[in-house]
This record gives sequence, structure tokens and C-alpha cells, in this order.
Amino acid sequence: MKHAMLWSLVATLCLVALHAEPQDSTASMPRYAGQNLMRPENYREWIFLSSGLGMNYNPSAGGQELFTNVFVPEWSYRQFLASGKWPDKSIFVVEERGSQSNGSINKTGHFQTELVGMGVEVKDEGRFPEKWAYFKFGADTKTAGANPKAACWQCHNDHAAVEHTFVQFYPTLKEVAKKFGTYRAAAENVSPFK
Amino acid sequence: MKHAMLWSLVATLCLVALHAEPQDSTASMPRYAGQNLMRPENYREWIFLSSGLGMNYNPSAGGQELFTNVFVPEWSYRQFLASGKWPDKSIFVVEERGSQSNGSINKTGHFQTELVGMGVEVKDEGRFPEKWAYFKFGADTKTAGANPKAACWQCHNDHAAVEHTFVQFYPTLKEVAKKFGTYRAAAENVSPFK
Repeated sequence: MKHAMLWSLVATLCLVALHAEPQDSTASMPRYAGQNLMRPENYREWIFLSSGLGMNYNPSAGGQELFTNVFVPEWSYRQFLASGKWPDKSIFVVEERGSQSNGSINKTGHFQTELVGMGVEVKDEGRFPEKWAYFKFGADTKTAGANPKAACWQCHNDHAAVEHTFVQFYPTLKEVAKKFGTYRAAAENVSPFK
Repeated sequence: MKHAMLWSLVATLCLVALHAEPQDSTASMPRYAGQNLMRPENYREWIFLSSGLGMNYNPSAGGQELFTNVFVPEWSYRQFLASGKWPDKSIFVVEERGSQSNGSINKTGHFQTELVGMGVEVKDEGRFPEKWAYFKFGADTKTAGANPKAACWQCHNDHAAVEHTFVQFYPTLKEVAKKFGTYRAAAENVSPFK
């Protein structure tokens, strides 16, 4: 009888272990070195939201057109799927990569090349009075301070479809947010610089 | 003493459970309905390899430029990181999405829109004499038969940098394959249609 109970405990504990939060749930929360955010690691193994090429809100933007790949940790993504909202400690990485047209068998269009840098958006309500903060990392930057409010925060606040996030550009999440009533459709029709 | 041994067993089993293969390792292997491949599910939660816009090996390609997002299951990706090779039962999904330029705050460049379809590549040595097979799914297709060998297989065989996969277009995996000596650098310089 005692053995039966112990075996039942073994089975239960193993089931709990198998269904535990993914191991990265704390590793993929923001970490700081003093005032600075530490560079997110392993974001290439997070959930991919979408990518763009040469996206810009300035119609006369010039210079090199970069690919931008957006990633969010799986634990945060799962909570968004279940609620249409981003939990505290969510991180968004917008990875910037170069673009090449002619290479190997590819003769037209664009494929991705070297890492150029990344933008990082963090929701950390206990740390930032404005809840969300924005950081810029070069290809090798290890830590970065928050950008001034005018640089990113204001535009995200005014024009993002879900809280501070541009879900209008993430086609698979758009439907989720609409279902939960957290999608601000008006954000699709802004012309902020006209 | 008996109790100590049982507790040690509990601890061991739980450690095993925590470090077990991710739960999707069988769910993200190819499944068939008769001769047809069933549409891969949940691939948006797999590992993202890269994306392109309007990639084509025909220099005079016309028509709508599509985004292509490439995903591979995490279990397969982990084995590639550890060996530079793709394990049997690997699946690659190349998701095709529309592209839009003017929308919300975006005024130039391109962002992704609706699902158009997907190409799927499967390594299944027990099922296909040529080991790799290729399938085409529309936005709603549930199952698909393998394409004729001339349609995809031959080009992948001749010009892919690692086995049948175009790792020359996946910047983060390229370095892994080079480290393990599985990268065919000559694949970067082909001009198949000249």
C-alpha cells in the first residue's frame, strides 16, 4: 500500500514536470546591468511574429533597406494567445539584417544576410513609470540604456494596435487580439506624418 | 533505506522528464493520409530560419512578390546545431504571405499580410527512395501529393548548400554547417539558368 502511494507520487511529479512552464520563462525576461538592459540571448529560438523589408514611416526614407525579424518569448506568446494581452516582463526583439538580391540560385527579390543590430522593446511595470521602454543594440552591443521617450515610446503609444505593440503588422496575432477585443482597428488608418 | 531509494528514483525520473525531448517531437514529424502528406500544424511555433521577399531563380520573374518564411521543428533544429546535419523525419515549411507597402504608419518598404500557401520539404528515408520529397499546399489545402522529381527535387539536389536544404540563405545556420564541414560553399556561386 505504501509502495502504491509512492508510485502514484512518482507518476504525479513526473506529469507536473512534463507540463511545467518552458525552461526559458525566466531566462527570456529582461535582465539589467545597473541602468542598462542586457542584450537578449537566444531570441532566435523564440516565437517569430513576422518580418518586413525596408519598413519605414518616413515616405522619403533612403539608405540600405534592412530586413526586420520580430521575435517574442514563448511564455509571453502563450499568454497573448490566451488573453490578447502582453504579460509584464515581455520582451520584443526586432532583429535587423542586411538584404541581398543576386546570390546562389537567387536572381531577383531579396534574401537575408548579416546581422546589423536590433531594437528591443520591454514591458516592465515595476521598473519603468511609463511601463514600456525601448533600446537599441548594434551587432555587438552588450548592454543599452533606454531611449528618450520621444524616440519610440510616443509613436508606439499613439499608433500601435495592441498596447504598445504593432500587432497590425503581425498577421497571425491580429486575429487573436480581435477575438479578445484588444485590437485598436483605428491604428490601421493613421497618417502620422502628413 | 527503501524510502531513500524510492525518493532517489523520484528525483531521477523528474530530472529525466524535465530534460526530455520537447513534446512536439513526434507531432512535428511528417504524417500521411494514404499517399498524401497531411498539412503541417503549428509550424508558426517552430524555429524560424529566415525570410525572403520575391525570391526567384528566374531573373525575369513577374507577378506578385511574396514573402517566404522558413520554419523547422525545434527537435530537428537542435540536432542540426549539434551535427550540421538534418535528422530523418525533418520537415521544412516555407510559408508564403502577401506583401503590402502603404498601411498604418508604414509608408515605404514591405510588411507581411495574408497567407497565400506553403511549400513543404520532407526528409523521410523509409518512405521516399530519393530520401527527400516536396509538396505544395494552398491556403486551405489539407493534404498534398509529392511533386514530380523535376519540379523541386533536382534543383535542391544540385544547388542546396547542405544536403537538400538552402542553408546558403539561412545566415544563422550557415556558420553551424561550416563548423561541422557539411557546408558546400560552391552552392553560393551557381548560375543554373545561364
